[in-house]
Amino acid sequence: MEHVISVLVENRFGVLAHIAGMFSGRGFNIDSLAVGETEDPSVSRMTIVVHGDDAVVEQILKQLNRQVDVIKVEDLVETKFVDRELMLIKVAVSAKSRSEILEIAELFRSRIVDVQKDSMVIEAAGTGEKLTALLDLLREYGIKQLVRTGRIGMARG
Amino acid sequence: MEHVISVLVENRFGVLAHIAGMFSGRGFNIDSLAVGETEDPSVSRMTIVVHGDDAVVEQILKQLNRQVDVIKVEDLVETKFVDRELMLIKVAVSAKSRSEILEIAELFRSRIVDVQKDSMVIEAAGTGEKLTALLDLLREYGIKQLVRTGRIGMARG
Repeated sequence: MEHVISVLVENRFGVLAHIAGMFSGRGFNIDSLAVGETEDPSVSRMTIVVHGDDAVVEQILKQLNRQVDVIKVEDLVETKFVDRELMLIKVAVSAKSRSEILEIAELFRSRIVDVQKDSMVIEAAGTGEKLTALLDLLREYGIKQLVRTGRIGMARG
Repeated sequence: MEHVISVLVENRFGVLAHIAGMFSGRGFNIDSLAVGETEDPSVSRMTIVVHGDDAVVEQILKQLNRQVDVIKVEDLVETKFVDRELMLIKVAVSAKSRSEILEIAELFRSRIVDVQKDSMVIEAAGTGEKLTALLDLLREYGIKQLVRTGRIGMARG
């Protein structure tokens, strides 16, 4: 099953590597990982997406809870939550295809952040489903580079 | 100086923890880290933002380049690049403040993804400057929770 694990940690060096290592040490591959600041500069939040055996994930969560540098751990899939991701997509363009690509970008409420003669960079944010649909449409023009943030999530209410 | 390091890596377990550890092992704190899929499912891209001594960062980049699981390393600040981040912001609302907050969200072209009686979740993407300005405005209503992806970047052209 998929797990979206939100971990509030003390912003000290080594914490990140240590926590990532707790998953890989158990043979889990991390699908995505996003680490950003919070309103408190001494605290960061990690959002980790993994697929794997529920019982083993449960064990890792318990182990995380025991770490000195871990303030709070939550598996968001156990709650109602929203999750979003951001992508930068560099897509190949020609004079002919430019207007088509602009139209697609607009439909998905995404933004053009760079335009060159033979490429364009699109910034797109949304649910996984939306981003997959956008990529499917852009793929036929040729995706030159794709950078994704990994998913972040938040419990509703 | 700030460094925005883009690392293309083989998607194997342990790679993430290992690379994060190369920074913390040198006493660097990672400001943000975003790891997401690319168009090739066997390859992930990490975007690491650190502040620190240029010479030491240079050494870490060389060391990264020598790793078997590292395909490509780039310090984006040495090129022209775009960088973006995504945030989910849970802001306190009342019947009175709701329309003001909606107006701010609209001005920043951000989206409302959840509405409750006493809170709202806003999805906002953009440059660091834009997101800082948005947070500054929302702070006076009360930020209940903030989750950020960390920055991702892409060379122009």
